[in-house]
Amino acid sequence: MRRAPMVGRFTREEVALASRNHGMPLEALREALTPAGLHYLLIHFDIPPPPQRLELGGRVERPFGITPDELRAMPSRSLAVTLECAGNGRAQLSPRYPSMPWLEEGVSTAQWTGVPLRTLLEKAGLQAGVREIAFFGADRGIDGGVEHAFARSLSLAHAMEEDVLVAYAMNGSPLPPQHGAPLRLVVPGWYGMASVKWLVSIQALAEPFDGLQQVRSYHFRKDAAEAGTPCTRIRVNSLMQPPGIPDFYSRNRVLAPGTVQITGRAWSGEAPIVAVELGVDGQWSPAQLDAPAGRYAWTGWHAAWDAVAGEHELACRATDAAGNRQPLEGDWDLTGFGNHGVHRMRVTVRG
Amino acid sequence: MRRAPMVGRFTREEVALASRNHGMPLEALREALTPAGLHYLLIHFDIPPPPQRLELGGRVERPFGITPDELRAMPSRSLAVTLECAGNGRAQLSPRYPSMPWLEEGVSTAQWTGVPLRTLLEKAGLQAGVREIAFFGADRGIDGGVEHAFARSLSLAHAMEEDVLVAYAMNGSPLPPQHGAPLRLVVPGWYGMASVKWLVSIQALAEPFDGLQQVRSYHFRKDAAEAGTPCTRIRVNSLMQPPGIPDFYSRNRVLAPGTVQITGRAWSGEAPIVAVELGVDGQWSPAQLDAPAGRYAWTGWHAAWDAVAGEHELACRATDAAGNRQPLEGDWDLTGFGNHGVHRMRVTVRG
Repeated sequence: MRRAPMVGRFTREEVALASRNHGMPLEALREALTPAGLHYLLIHFDIPPPPQRLELGGRVERPFGITPDELRAMPSRSLAVTLECAGNGRAQLSPRYPSMPWLEEGVSTAQWTGVPLRTLLEKAGLQAGVREIAFFGADRGIDGGVEHAFARSLSLAHAMEEDVLVAYAMNGSPLPPQHGAPLRLVVPGWYGMASVKWLVSIQALAEPFDGLQQVRSYHFRKDAAEAGTPCTRIRVNSLMQPPGIPDFYSRNRVLAPGTVQITGRAWSGEAPIVAVELGVDGQWSPAQLDAPAGRYAWTGWHAAWDAVAGEHELACRATDAAGNRQPLEGDWDLTGFGNHGVHRMRVTVRG
Repeated sequence: MRRAPMVGRFTREEVALASRNHGMPLEALREALTPAGLHYLLIHFDIPPPPQRLELGGRVERPFGITPDELRAMPSRSLAVTLECAGNGRAQLSPRYPSMPWLEEGVSTAQWTGVPLRTLLEKAGLQAGVREIAFFGADRGIDGGVEHAFARSLSLAHAMEEDVLVAYAMNGSPLPPQHGAPLRLVVPGWYGMASVKWLVSIQALAEPFDGLQQVRSYHFRKDAAEAGTPCTRIRVNSLMQPPGIPDFYSRNRVLAPGTVQITGRAWSGEAPIVAVELGVDGQWSPAQLDAPAGRYAWTGWHAAWDAVAGEHELACRATDAAGNRQPLEGDWDLTGFGNHGVHRMRVTVRG
């Protein structure tokens, strides 16, 4: 039931997915927090009607259900978190896996407010021997020939970290339908698939969770026969805000000669951003970093460019404190995960 | 500078446009008012920073500028309005014009609140001889080789109708950036291109407006050499909410046998909806209509279907009070405007 990678133009199915699961328009990089309707979306099945209740169960002493109103009455935390789809950049690879054809826009940052997952697990009381916590959404469908509700798990140690939230608000407003209303998980630093939306059930497990989206999907592999390596933390990456004005169809940029401030944002789920370079026609120079907006949020950067008439290629490349640096070209992956090759943009400077 | 129509798979440029300009996921048809982040988008250039002021000028007695706060203090109207992109359905046609590759999801309904345009025109005082009112957005770019800010016009008589609004709120909240913040035009009953976003200037003209988006784009034509016929009112059209659950990639639907309520919405910019038919494998039967939600808003419909095991094709077809009825197949148009052929969906009923 797996689909075969392909080359060249895009299928109708890919276009239908792109029309549903939109990216963040790159001009929205000017906002430190992405407005709700501009935050990227990846919805596997349909947006479900809002679940009325979240159940906590499995290997716990005191299973319970909780309504969104009850959750909102509990002590909360707010965190600015950059989320990125694990498949971001998939459509830059060739051959390309038939799925959501992200070019580079599957990333955004929002302020999420919710109750630490740990608070709910302590309320339920974990039994001895719990190894993982599994999270089930209300969204149900078929993938790889298997019918299932979208579900993922975290190790017990990860689930007990104070910054993993059961969130009920985004940028200060209740979650919109498409972002998991009324309750979703937010797992800072990890690719978006970990942040399960439309949460209906949290289960404490004595054995590793064996759901399709955990053990088969969201793995790096070069060949379908490999077990693969799970997608976890967001790889170091960066984008730039397009300068000048666009051509409607090609999105190529046109601007006047002179000094231009090129701005953008960089992020890594592994360590703070320590450097960004701006590339102009293959020549790299350091950009200046803004103060970080939070441990899990992207870092703004800017660099002056003396634009002279002609055709140019701009590029940006980030490095994090763990020594991870974006590759010039993304590594090929069978299902198109984790492509963090440098972002390139063609611009025309008028004479 | 015009692009050549093409057949078959989609270009990278079309995919990039689809990732920016998302449609309304069809499951959102369950909502009479589309939530802001799910309302379809067609943004020609970039989302601009919010303009601070709207100027009224041209052939008027008392030109003036007004801020969004000043506008919000004036008497307002609220209207539920269905907007549809003139290019909706473009990607169902072959050959297909290279542009935003809408399949069928470029339609939505919102409650818009604003000041009647007429109030502002009366405040400015129109001079004798005014024939058209032109509207300029802050969004600037290149299309068809021509650099311009997006701009459109209305006839004087149309501009003076009480339901043409300069809107500042959508579903009770300030306009989001992508829907024209802080002020946009809303022209009920017309395809979306008339509802100019990010309004910066309204000009009274003694001659017809000659902007590219008015006199060249947004025309029905079969051949590039034709002058063509302008796109104006929304043609009668309808969609259905997909039953059952989807396959992630193909979006094909799977459901259990038995009686299923098929629901959807129908709309026309020319007259009220008077009939919707549900087609099952080519056999048509009448659906029941809900009470209309307003003069300019879509009408809900539902029909029971006794689903038996096997593969089926569902379709829906609306008729309005002016006698307009959706064609079984959309008329071909060079740039892909006005396709209102019936919506079809493949479903699998399990045995």
